[in-house]
Amino acid sequence: MTQDSTIAVIVNGAAGKMGREVVKAVTQAEDMTLFAAIDHNPQVQGLDVGTLVGMGEQDLFITQELEPTLAAAVQSHRQTVMVDFTHPSSVYHNVRAAIAYGVRPVVGTTGLSEEQIKDLAEFADKADVGCLIIPNFSIGMVLLQQAAVQASQYFDHVEIIELHHNQKADAPSGTALQTAQMLSELGKTYNPPQVEEKEHFPGARGSKVGEQIRVHSVRLPGLIAHQEVLFGAPGQIYTLRHDTSDRACYMPGVLLSIRKVIELQTLVFGLEKLI
Amino acid sequence: MTQDSTIAVIVNGAAGKMGREVVKAVTQAEDMTLFAAIDHNPQVQGLDVGTLVGMGEQDLFITQELEPTLAAAVQSHRQTVMVDFTHPSSVYHNVRAAIAYGVRPVVGTTGLSEEQIKDLAEFADKADVGCLIIPNFSIGMVLLQQAAVQASQYFDHVEIIELHHNQKADAPSGTALQTAQMLSELGKTYNPPQVEEKEHFPGARGSKVGEQIRVHSVRLPGLIAHQEVLFGAPGQIYTLRHDTSDRACYMPGVLLSIRKVIELQTLVFGLEKLI
Amino acid sequence: MTQDSTIAVIVNGAAGKMGREVVKAVTQAEDMTLFAAIDHNPQVQGLDVGTLVGMGEQDLFITQELEPTLAAAVQSHRQTVMVDFTHPSSVYHNVRAAIAYGVRPVVGTTGLSEEQIKDLAEFADKADVGCLIIPNFSIGMVLLQQAAVQASQYFDHVEIIELHHNQKADAPSGTALQTAQMLSELGKTYNPPQVEEKEHFPGARGSKVGEQIRVHSVRLPGLIAHQEVLFGAPGQIYTLRHDTSDRACYMPGVLLSIRKVIELQTLVFGLEKLI
Amino acid sequence: MTQDSTIAVIVNGAAGKMGREVVKAVTQAEDMTLFAAIDHNPQVQGLDVGTLVGMGEQDLFITQELEPTLAAAVQSHRQTVMVDFTHPSSVYHNVRAAIAYGVRPVVGTTGLSEEQIKDLAEFADKADVGCLIIPNFSIGMVLLQQAAVQASQYFDHVEIIELHHNQKADAPSGTALQTAQMLSELGKTYNPPQVEEKEHFPGARGSKVGEQIRVHSVRLPGLIAHQEVLFGAPGQIYTLRHDTSDRACYMPGVLLSIRKVIELQTLVFGLEKLI
Repeated sequence: MTQDSTIAVIVNGAAGKMGREVVKAVTQAEDMTLFAAIDHNPQVQGLDVGTLVGMGEQDLFITQELEPTLAAAVQSHRQTVMVDFTHPSSVYHNVRAAIAYGVRPVVGTTGLSEEQIKDLAEFADKADVGCLIIPNFSIGMVLLQQAAVQASQYFDHVEIIELHHNQKADAPSGTALQTAQMLSELGKTYNPPQVEEKEHFPGARGSKVGEQIRVHSVRLPGLIAHQEVLFGAPGQIYTLRHDTSDRACYMPGVLLSIRKVIELQTLVFGLEKLI
Repeated sequence: MTQDSTIAVIVNGAAGKMGREVVKAVTQAEDMTLFAAIDHNPQVQGLDVGTLVGMGEQDLFITQELEPTLAAAVQSHRQTVMVDFTHPSSVYHNVRAAIAYGVRPVVGTTGLSEEQIKDLAEFADKADVGCLIIPNFSIGMVLLQQAAVQASQYFDHVEIIELHHNQKADAPSGTALQTAQMLSELGKTYNPPQVEEKEHFPGARGSKVGEQIRVHSVRLPGLIAHQEVLFGAPGQIYTLRHDTSDRACYMPGVLLSIRKVIELQTLVFGLEKLI
Repeated sequence: MTQDSTIAVIVNGAAGKMGREVVKAVTQAEDMTLFAAIDHNPQVQGLDVGTLVGMGEQDLFITQELEPTLAAAVQSHRQTVMVDFTHPSSVYHNVRAAIAYGVRPVVGTTGLSEEQIKDLAEFADKADVGCLIIPNFSIGMVLLQQAAVQASQYFDHVEIIELHHNQKADAPSGTALQTAQMLSELGKTYNPPQVEEKEHFPGARGSKVGEQIRVHSVRLPGLIAHQEVLFGAPGQIYTLRHDTSDRACYMPGVLLSIRKVIELQTLVFGLEKLI
Repeated sequence: MTQDSTIAVIVNGAAGKMGREVVKAVTQAEDMTLFAAIDHNPQVQGLDVGTLVGMGEQDLFITQELEPTLAAAVQSHRQTVMVDFTHPSSVYHNVRAAIAYGVRPVVGTTGLSEEQIKDLAEFADKADVGCLIIPNFSIGMVLLQQAAVQASQYFDHVEIIELHHNQKADAPSGTALQTAQMLSELGKTYNPPQVEEKEHFPGARGSKVGEQIRVHSVRLPGLIAHQEVLFGAPGQIYTLRHDTSDRACYMPGVLLSIRKVIELQTLVFGLEKLI
C-alpha cells in the first residue's frame, strides 16, 4: 500500500491519556498515516510525537492550533479523519470546523449536548461529510450488549453484576445502566417473582433498573472494570462477561471508526451502529 | 385460546429421561395439548402419563404402538407434532411414518446417518411436511455459539475451557469441538503466537482444534456441564459461559421447535436455524 | 476390618431428603454399618431401607420408634451413633434419649433453642457421651470460611456475592450472613471508603452486614447455591467460591462427624470445630 | 511514633520496576523511613528519589555504592533493613555485605544458588542477623496455597487453571507448578479415575504435574496473571482464585517482610513462613 492511499489521521488531544494511545495505534496501523498531532497543553508544543508516547522519534511535531492543520489536510487531497479526545468545552467547535474543511471527525470526547449533536448532524448532512460520535469505543462491550439483547428474546430472567476499583464513586456504572436500559427497551418485563422476597438487610438484592433488572455494584481495590450479565432459566445459566484492564482495549474501536467514517456521509452515533 | 387451536403433541419415548421432561413441558404449555404418550417399555403400558411424571393424573394413558396414534392424529384434523426421543434403531422408521401421516417430527434421538437424513429430507419435501432434527436443544448454547461467531470477527485470540463431571470419558466435549469448528469455518487462523511457547509438561497448553483454537477439558466430581469461550485482545477479555445443571434446560428449545415445525414444509437440521 | 469393629449407625429421619442420602453414604462407608433406619412417616414402615433409597435390598427394615432401637444398640455392645434429621419438634427429645442410652448423636435437625443446647451440653457432660450439633455439614463451606478468616488478616477490603435459585425468599442467605459475621468478629472494620460513593439507584452497592461488609444477593432460575468472597488490595483480587449442586455434598461432613463423635465426651457445636 | 523508632530502609535497585514500588511503599509506611536509595544505573545518580518515582521531592538522592550506605547505617544506631531488587550477579555480594554490617536483608532478587543460600544462612546464623529470601512477595498467592493445602485434606480431586498474557512463553507457570508440588508433597495421589478417559485431541486434559494434578495453561492478550485451583467432590466445587494486575500487589508482602526480618536472627526462605 503506498503512502498516498492510506488514511491521513489528525489526533486532536494527542497528549491526553486516550490521545497517546491513539497516536500509537494509528502509527502502527498499515492503512493509516499520522498526519498531525495537536494538543492544547503548552508544555508539549514542538515535541516529537514519538518521544511523547515513548515510541522513538517520528519526525512529526505537536502543534497547538487545529485550523491550520485542517487547511493543510485539504491541500493534501487525501482522505483525512480527525480523532478528537479533547475537552467538553472545545469539542463542538472542533467538530464543526473539521466538517467545514471536509475532514471526517471521530469523536470520543464527552459533553456534547443533544442539541449540539442534532446541529452537527444537520451540518454533516448538508456537507456530505461522515461524522462519528462514539461514547464508548469498546468493541467487546458492544458485542456483549448485542449478545445480551439477543439472549433476552429467550430468557426472562437476568441480573447484572458490575465490579470496579473502589475509587469509582458512581454506582451502578454508566455501562451497566446502559446495558439494563437496552434490555428494558425491548418491551418486556424481566424477573417475574417466584416467591415473595424478604430483604433482611436493605440493598441485598441490588438496585432495580428499567424493567426490573437487578444491578449489583462491587467496589474493591484490585478490581479494574468488569461487567457480567447473567441470564437464567430452569437448569441453565448463560453468562456474558467483559473485563477491561487497559485503555489499549479501545484502540480496535478507534481504528474501526476511522475506517468506517470515510464511507459515511452523515453523522452516526454509537459504535454499535458499526458492528 | 380454545382447545382446538392448540398444537397436538405426540411424545414418542415418553418414559425416557428426556421424554418425561417433554411430557411435563407440553402439559404446562398453554398453546399445546398432549395428544398421546408412547413408549416401548412394557412396564409402563396403560399408566396414566401424569402419574408417570409425578404431575397428578392427566387421563391420558401410555400406549406402545406409534401408527394407530398417527392415524388418530389424522382423524383429529388438528396440527400435530411428534417429538421423538426413542432409540437410534427406531428413529428413522418413526420419522418416516410421521411424515407419511402428515404429522411433523421434532427429533431429538441421535443416530440418524447422513444418508437417512438426506432421505428423510427428500421425503419431507415431497410431502410438504416440516421436520426438525435437533442434536442439541439448548438455546443457551446456541446463543453462546452465535455470540462467539460474532465476536470472532473482532477478536483474533480465543481459547475454550469446558468443565464436566469426571464420569465423562471423552475430551474435549462434543459441544466444545463443535464450537471450535464453527469458529474455524470462518476462514481465519486464530492465536498468532507472540512468543515461542515452551510446554514444560506436555498438554499444559491444551489441545489444538481446527484453526489453532486451544481447548482445555477439566473433569471433576461436582461439576455438571459447563463451557467457557474466552476472547482476548490487548486490555480486554470477553467471556461467554454456559452452565447446564438439569435437563429442564432443553425444554424451551423443544417447545420452540414444536412451534416452528408447523410453519415449515421441509426438513431443517439444528436449533441454530431457528434462532 | 471385621463387622464388629465398624461404627453402628442409626439414621433417624431416614425417609427424608437428607436421611436418604445418609442411608446411602453410611451403607457405602467401609468403617460403618447401618444399624437401624427410623422414620416417623407411617407410609414407609416395614419397607426395606435399600428399596427406599434405590440401592437394592439391604435386609434392614424401617421402623417408627426410637427407644427400642436405642435399647437394642446398648445390647449390641457396639459403638453406636445416631444421625438425626427429623423435625424441630422432636429433635430435643431424640437427642436426650440417645445420650441417656450412651448412643452418640450427630444432629443435623434445626430448631434447637440456645437453652435446649445448653441443657443437652450439660447432660452429655454428665454422661460422658459425645454429641455433635452441626447446622451445616458442608466441609467445603467451612474450608471457605476458614480461608476467609485467614485472608482477612491481610486484606482490608472484602465483599460477598451469593447466588441462589429464585425460589429462595430470604436475602442475604444465612450462610453469607454467617460468613460476614465471622469476618466481623475479628475486631476490624472493613472497606474504608476511598471516595464518597453515590448510589444512583438504591441498593446498587448491596447490603451492609457487620463491620461494613457488602453482601450482594443474586436470584435466578438455573442457579443452585453459590457463594463468592472477594478480597481486594491494590493490584490483586483473592476470591474464594463454593458451588453446591447436590445434597451429596454434605455426606463427607456427616461421615466425618460420625467418626469424630465417638472420640468426644462432650457436646460440640459446628463442623468448623472438627476441621 | 518518633522518627527514631521507625525502621530505616535501604532500597537497593531503587530505579528498577520493583524498586520504585518499594520506594513508594516505604515512604508511605508510618513505621518506616527511607534511609537510602541505591541504584547501579549511572543515569539516575544524584536524582531525588521522589522525582524518580513521581511522588514529589523527598530530599533523598540516589547513590551508586552500597558499602558507604551500610557504614552510615551502622553509625545511625537504628534498626536497618536492606530491600534488594538488583541482579542475580550482585545479589550474593550485597546480602553478605549487609549481614556483615548488621543490616537485615529482605531479598527479592532471583538467582541465588542453593549453595549460596546455604552459605548466607550460616553467615546470618553466626552474625545473629535476620535475613529473608522471598521468591514471591504475593500474600494473596501464599494465602491461596495455604488454603489449597488445607482443602486437600478433604478433597481427593483437584485441577489447576492458570491464565496469563500471551507473551509468557513458559507453561505451566512457575506458581502453578509450585502449587501442584505443594499439594503433591502431602503424600496423597489425587484424581482417582472414574472412567477410562479418551483424549480425542492430545493435550485436552492438560498436563499432569506431581501426584496426578492436571494443570491447564491459557494464554491470551488481555489476560494479566491469574490462577484458579478447583477442588471437586460429589455435589460441590470449591474454587480458590488469585488475580494479579499490578506490581503494587507485592508491596504488602514487602512491608510485612521488613517488619518481620528485624525480629529474626537467622535466614528464612519464603513468604509462607511469615503467614
